[in-house]
Order: sequence, then C-alpha cells, then structure tokens
Amino acid sequence: MEHSWVNSAETTPRASGHRPAPVEPSEEGSDLHLELAGSGSVRARLMNALREAIRSGRLAPDTRLPPYRTLAVDLGIARNTVADAYAELVEEGWLTARQGSGTKVARRATPLQPDQARGPTRRTHRRVTHDLMPSSPDAAAFPRTAWTASARRALAAAPNEAFGVADPRGRPELRHALVEYLARARGVRTDAERIVVCSGFAHGLRLLCQVLHGSVAVESYGLDFHRSILEGAGLETVPLSVDAHGARVEELATTRAGAVLLTPAHQFPTGGPLHAQRRIAVIDWARATGGLLLEDDYDGEFRYDREPVGAVQGLDPDRVVYFGSTSKSLSPALRLGWMALPGWMVDRVIEAKGPREMWSGVVDQLTLADFLASGAYDRHLRRMRRIYRRRRDQLTATLAERAPHIEVTGIAAGLHAVLELPEGTEQAALRAARRQGLSLDGLSLYRHPRSATAPRDGLVIGYGTPPEHAFARALDALCLALPGPTRDDEAPATARGRK
Amino acid sequence: MEHSWVNSAETTPRASGHRPAPVEPSEEGSDLHLELAGSGSVRARLMNALREAIRSGRLAPDTRLPPYRTLAVDLGIARNTVADAYAELVEEGWLTARQGSGTKVARRATPLQPDQARGPTRRTHRRVTHDLMPSSPDAAAFPRTAWTASARRALAAAPNEAFGVADPRGRPELRHALVEYLARARGVRTDAERIVVCSGFAHGLRLLCQVLHGSVAVESYGLDFHRSILEGAGLETVPLSVDAHGARVEELATTRAGAVLLTPAHQFPTGGPLHAQRRIAVIDWARATGGLLLEDDYDGEFRYDREPVGAVQGLDPDRVVYFGSTSKSLSPALRLGWMALPGWMVDRVIEAKGPREMWSGVVDQLTLADFLASGAYDRHLRRMRRIYRRRRDQLTATLAERAPHIEVTGIAAGLHAVLELPEGTEQAALRAARRQGLSLDGLSLYRHPRSATAPRDGLVIGYGTPPEHAFARALDALCLALPGPTRDDEAPATARGRK
Repeated sequence: MEHSWVNSAETTPRASGHRPAPVEPSEEGSDLHLELAGSGSVRARLMNALREAIRSGRLAPDTRLPPYRTLAVDLGIARNTVADAYAELVEEGWLTARQGSGTKVARRATPLQPDQARGPTRRTHRRVTHDLMPSSPDAAAFPRTAWTASARRALAAAPNEAFGVADPRGRPELRHALVEYLARARGVRTDAERIVVCSGFAHGLRLLCQVLHGSVAVESYGLDFHRSILEGAGLETVPLSVDAHGARVEELATTRAGAVLLTPAHQFPTGGPLHAQRRIAVIDWARATGGLLLEDDYDGEFRYDREPVGAVQGLDPDRVVYFGSTSKSLSPALRLGWMALPGWMVDRVIEAKGPREMWSGVVDQLTLADFLASGAYDRHLRRMRRIYRRRRDQLTATLAERAPHIEVTGIAAGLHAVLELPEGTEQAALRAARRQGLSLDGLSLYRHPRSATAPRDGLVIGYGTPPEHAFARALDALCLALPGPTRDDEAPATARGRK
Repeated sequence: MEHSWVNSAETTPRASGHRPAPVEPSEEGSDLHLELAGSGSVRARLMNALREAIRSGRLAPDTRLPPYRTLAVDLGIARNTVADAYAELVEEGWLTARQGSGTKVARRATPLQPDQARGPTRRTHRRVTHDLMPSSPDAAAFPRTAWTASARRALAAAPNEAFGVADPRGRPELRHALVEYLARARGVRTDAERIVVCSGFAHGLRLLCQVLHGSVAVESYGLDFHRSILEGAGLETVPLSVDAHGARVEELATTRAGAVLLTPAHQFPTGGPLHAQRRIAVIDWARATGGLLLEDDYDGEFRYDREPVGAVQGLDPDRVVYFGSTSKSLSPALRLGWMALPGWMVDRVIEAKGPREMWSGVVDQLTLADFLASGAYDRHLRRMRRIYRRRRDQLTATLAERAPHIEVTGIAAGLHAVLELPEGTEQAALRAARRQGLSLDGLSLYRHPRSATAPRDGLVIGYGTPPEHAFARALDALCLALPGPTRDDEAPATARGRK
C-alpha cells in the first residue's frame, strides 16, 4: 500500500525517508485493545474507550500509555486526535502527563468497587399476588389516550414562556382550571392567586410544616407517613379520637394545637364523612383560636350513593388549607397536587417552596389544565366511579355470602373499606392474608401511638388497586384469610348492620 | 297548561283538588334568583347556585330559606331534588336546619373577604425588555414536536405498573437511559441502582442536606439560592476562593468542611473549568478526609471550542455526588434532574426523599427516557450548541467592536459570559442596564458574603434566554449600558486578551 508523504507523516510518524516503514504495534500499547465503538467523533469514541479501559481495570493505575503517535498508528487515526484525547483525559484527571515520563494512568482513577458496583441492598419484598393496599387507584385504568391527546394540545398551545423560569405557584392555565373545577365539584372558594401547585399531598404538607409551629392535631387513625412528615419537621402531633362521624373535633379545645389535619370527606382509613356539626365546630375552633384546618381531600370525588360532600374549605377560605391531588383520581405517579391557601399564607408557602422551584413539570401541569377544561377529567371520574362502585358492591356481596359475620364499614365513598374484626384477631388475619399472597394493612398500622381510645381490630381493603381481571381472585383469597365466625356471630347475618 | 295529578303533586305540592293552584312565588324566596346554570345534575346545579349565593353575600347569614317545596315550585323542579340539596348543604355546613325554624344560612358561611379576595400582594417587577439572566435556556427552542412524539411513544409503551405507586428512585427506564447517556457524554460511572431522579439540582441539594451535617465548602462565587438551601438546612457554608482555574480546592485543608459543592465543568458564574490538578486534588482531599464532592454539572453539555470536559465523578464514584438536570439543556420548567450517588448513600437519600414520593411525574420521566434513547436529546443538544455558539460569537464580536475596553471571560462553554468591569463601576452599570430595560445580574450578587478575596466588578450575561429574533437588540441595549473606556483602556483593543 502506497502512502503519499503527507499521509504517511500522519499515520506513521516514525517512518523515515520516502517509503513508510512497516507499521508495528508498539510494545506498550500491544495489549490495549481499544474498540472505538458507538457514535460520536473519533476523538470522543477514543476517549470513551480509554475511560472504559481504566474503569474496568484493564489499564491499571500508573500504567504508561503508548505515545500518542504510536496509538494513532495502531488505530489508524490522526495523531492530533490521539494527542487531543490524551490532553483532554489529563484535564479530566484520568491520565497524568509529565515531561519525560510520558502519559500514565492516574492513580486516582480506580475502578468501581465490585461490592459497591452491585448497588445498595434493596429491601426485598415477599411476592405479592393480590394487592389490596389502599394507596393507589387501578394503574391499568390510567387514561393514556386522553392524556396523550391533552398533552399534544397543551404542548402545541403553550406560550414560549411556559418553558422558561416559572411562577413557583404553578402554571396559570392549571390554576385557573382548578379554580373552576374545585368550585364546581368540591365547593372550594378560591382564586388562581391562592392556588399553589405541588407534587401531591405530602409535598404540600412538607411546605406547610415550614409555616406551622408547635403542635398539630391529627386523626387518631391516619397515615403514619403523614405523621412522620409533621414530626420530622419538629411539630408535635396530638391525636383526636375518631368515631363513625369522623374526628371528635371537640377534643381540640383540650389541646394547644395551632392546626388540625383532617380528612373530612372520607376519614382515612375508617371511612366516614365528618359530621355536619363537626364541620362547623372545627371552623368555629379555628376562628376562635386563630387555628388552621388542613383539609386533606384525597378522594373526595369518589362517592357512590349520593353526591360528594363538598369541602369544608368553602365555609371559611381564610382558615382552611385545602389539599387535593390526582393521586387517587388519575395516578399517584403523576405527582400533581394543589393547595388552596388562605390569602395571607401564599407568600410564606412560596418562600418555603423555593422561589425558583415549581416542582411539578410544566408539561404535566399544562396537560392537566387541558384535561380539566376539556371535560376529560369528569369523564374519567364518572368511568372510575362506575368501576369502583362495582368493585365495592362485589366486595360487600362476596363478604355477605362468604363471611357474613364480618362487618364492612366505610363503603359509601373512596377506594377502600374496613373489615371490622373480632377483638384480638387482626394480627392472625394479617398473617393469613400474607399466606394467601395478599398485600393489605391492618387498622392498627394507622393508629396514632398516643391515641387514647382502645385499638380496633380490622383490615383496610383497597379495592382500587387490582386490575379488573384480578379482582375476583383477590376477593377469593381475602375470604380465605378472614377469621371464622365466633359464637356471637351466629345470629343471622341479615340482622347485622352494613353501613 | 294541564298537569297530570302525579305531575302536579311533584311540582305544586300545595295544590289541592284536581286542578293545580296557580304557582305563586313564595315570599321568602322571591328575591332569590337562582340560575341553575352549568352542567351536572339538577341537584348539583342547585347546590352550586345556593353556595354561590351564600358566597357572594346575596344570602346573608341567618337568612331563612324558602321551604323546599316552595323553592321546588319556583324553580319547576322536583321536591326531592331541593330537599336533597338542602340536606347536603346542611351536611356541608352551609345551611342549618332545626325542627320548627326551617332552613337558614349558617353563620359561618361568610363571603370571601374582599381585600383578601384580591389575592396576596405579588412582587411587581419593572418591565423587562431584554432578559439576559443566566438562569434559563431559550424557552422558544424547546423541542415541542420531538417531546410530544417521545411522550406518545412512552405512554403507549409503558407498563401499567408505571401508573401505580412507584420506586422513589424514579422510573427504571429513565435511570437506565441516564446511565448510558452519562457514561457516554459526561464520563460518569454509575449504574441504575445509584441514580435517583429528582426535580432538579435544588431538590437534589435539599435531599443531600438531610444526609450532610456540619459545614459545606462552596465556591466564593455561586448562586446565593444554593447557599440559602444549605444554610436553611442548618449547614454552615465556607467559601473557597475562585480564580481562572476554578475553585482553589487547596483551601479545603484549612476548613472543617465535610463536603464541597463545586461546578467543575464550568464554574458558575465566573466560567472557567476546574483545572486538572484541582480535579485530582479534590478527590485526594475527599479520600483523605472521608469528604464528599457535590458536583453540580449544570451545563456540562455546552462547550463550544472542543469536546466537553468529563465529570470529576468518574475519578471516584464513591466520593462524588453527581448532579445533572434538563434545566439548561431543555427547560427549567420540566423539573427533571438526577443524582448519581455513591452506593452507600442511596438508601439515606431515598429516606430523605420520602418512601412514597417520586417527586417527578412518571410521564416526563418516561418521555425523557425515550428522548434520550431515541437520540432526540443528542440532536437537540447539537442544535442548541450551534445556536448558543453563534450567540456567544455575536456577543464577543459586538463587544469587540463597540466596547473593546471590556474584557469578556468564561465564554468557552455554557450559556453565559462575564463582562469584567473597571473597579467600582458595577452598580452604575447595573443601573444603566435597568434603564435600558435589561434584566441581568452583577457579579457581586453571586459573591459569598464571607469571601476572603476582593470583590470583582462584572456583569453576568446570560445569552441563552432571549428568543433568536430579540438577541441583536438585547446586545445593542447592553452596549449602551456599559461604562466607557478609562484612560488605561486606551491602548489598542487588539492587545487585550480575550479568554
């Protein structure tokens, strides 16, 4: 093969005279099999190959690299390319170069530790066949087509500034759509200036924690995750007893709580709505004491036997922080929620949120705005209400037939019910459930550790989570896990109340 | 108009005999003009209308409502509908009902306070004609079409479980795509188990704050927003001097810092890359002291005159937390970022993040995974590099011509440059800039208040933010705001260095 002088100078720099010397692999570089795979420039591929060789340990620390001219010959590429790659890797700290001693692999560039390369130990879960946790709606029912259509419209219609640094309250399109929807569907009285978009209830609560101080009253049954957010922020939680009419808000008078966190539309997890007198009483308390109601309206849209109960917030928008989200209505993976705040709190919450941080992505916010305004949200909710009501009916019918001694409560609304168990049987029922491959929680998990009232035995059954086709089998497994009837239960099942 | 008996009983309950009595408006209800507008059931519309009347103050507290039969006649709707609506509104606390005294507007249901209904006072900004803040890429260049295509593909391909309760580290599709991309483009050594998706750098830093303690070294020039996150979490910040080679990491030895936050690829805001020896020195420091480098790779993809400098993280993945995001490459409004963590930190960061919280929406995560894997991200970056390089060149050419006495630094990479100003002229230049309708920052805004080195006068010019068509005019305005040459500057401009 003939080379022009220029070419041979580029590819075989050690050649002397007019004919190029035969190309011999350099000694130092002979075991260095670099594959310039992938895309990008030759230099980028060479750099990746060198980094990879160092990472993997094939090129050990202090190893002397072939002179760049040699490597250029070996690889059939331009000298400058190799020289540049070496210089770049020196700058990045992979290689060291010293006058006279050539280019070496830097001592710092050790390979990934093998034991750590496996990554952290992850919690291993027992295999779950039937998921009856109350945390999620049916993931298979996410309205992908309608959401995609809204995203397409929203992205096409958005002003350019939507992709710039944004208002930390969230996109105005979404806040306006929420004001209209929340007034219409939930009786919330607010305006777009008082809405703050967040990543869901927990994010909103974290923000509020930075505005609150002292102690916060909570329901004696509730998510320990929410209690831990409050307590993690240095707030004390004080339990209020819960009965069939929701939290006993009259107990607030005996606390020094400056705020109370309630689930008025559908007490979580026991299931009843807050009684009308208590709705008024909690507002009276807030007005008299300068207190604040944190209203967690986590599944207020789902009520099966009549219209949903409106939000307490409407009674006094200046004393209530209303929290809503798409976590139950669409998907907890969307991470979209909102707060309707008293006007005097907005700036403080924005400051807690971070002046540059919207937190929720603009595409999802714009998409939800379109989804609400186009009526797709209402259509989706109607569809899901039908699905969940059918499941609720299937749950109660199955239990009436196969476990008539078990009382089911909290079934008028939401995506979960409570099976009341005989005293002292909850733990055994949970063990039996695990043996059946069921993932579900007992009531005791939700009980505030300082609750004054006696613990109730029960199972919390999320009937939203399983996919349609798997629900009947999940119920079969559940029936097998329930305790049998005691002597007291032998009265006819039809005489027992089902509320 | 004839009514059947059944109909008349429904609509005119007070009628006696076979012929309906003439319908007369009830006295109490005569001034209550309820419009059952909107969509939804008659009951829902009636409830909304009543809530609205109470909200607006048209129905004052203690006002007695017409008996439900009367209102049913007035509105020509079924009695039961009105009775149900009343009962529902009593339950929501809008109305009170007492045997014998009828249904009244509850005292608590006061209208929105007019002064508060205006919403909180928002900071008013001076009108900005030219935005040269360094915080945002060109919002008009967001790749809407390609993003929509990725979203459509990603939503169609996602498994159902993607819409359920999720891994707080983020979607595996995205974490795998990031591992491949970060290794290829940024020299990051990690695996999908060590990636944690977050809402951007600030969110990641907030999470790290819960794992760190004591003091954190920072660059003496940097975002005060980041310092305030650290200090807000109870961490002390210690400034390291910054020169043309980045932070003087040798000063770490004189601090008690357990971690150091750096911008190695492109010091923010002064603009130089961290020198190779300092890259190695900071890793040596971390190894010797058990310290941690927090590597903020905020715009590492944008380098114009040669290949980007790889991440320091690659030198020792067990001593570096690598932070990246789409805030400069795509849009700060996406709220998508990531951390590549040392393996031993992953569980702690997840705990700080909240075990149920992904924070970033699943749709954006899946979309970005597709965007990366399909090559759309690389195409977008190449396009933006061309655009920003052209703007950078336009900036330097304009200044060379019209303000040759002003030195421009930090121009090899990123979306901003620094104009070095004569001592003591920064504030005057900022005032002049405001008069020109320019929004930009002076260097002093970024200076750590406890920095030991003398303050520099300068302007930070973000050339990414303006839309294409407005950039030339923004530069014109900038030139008008710059201080004129001093006696020292009168040497020929060509003799002055431009690095």
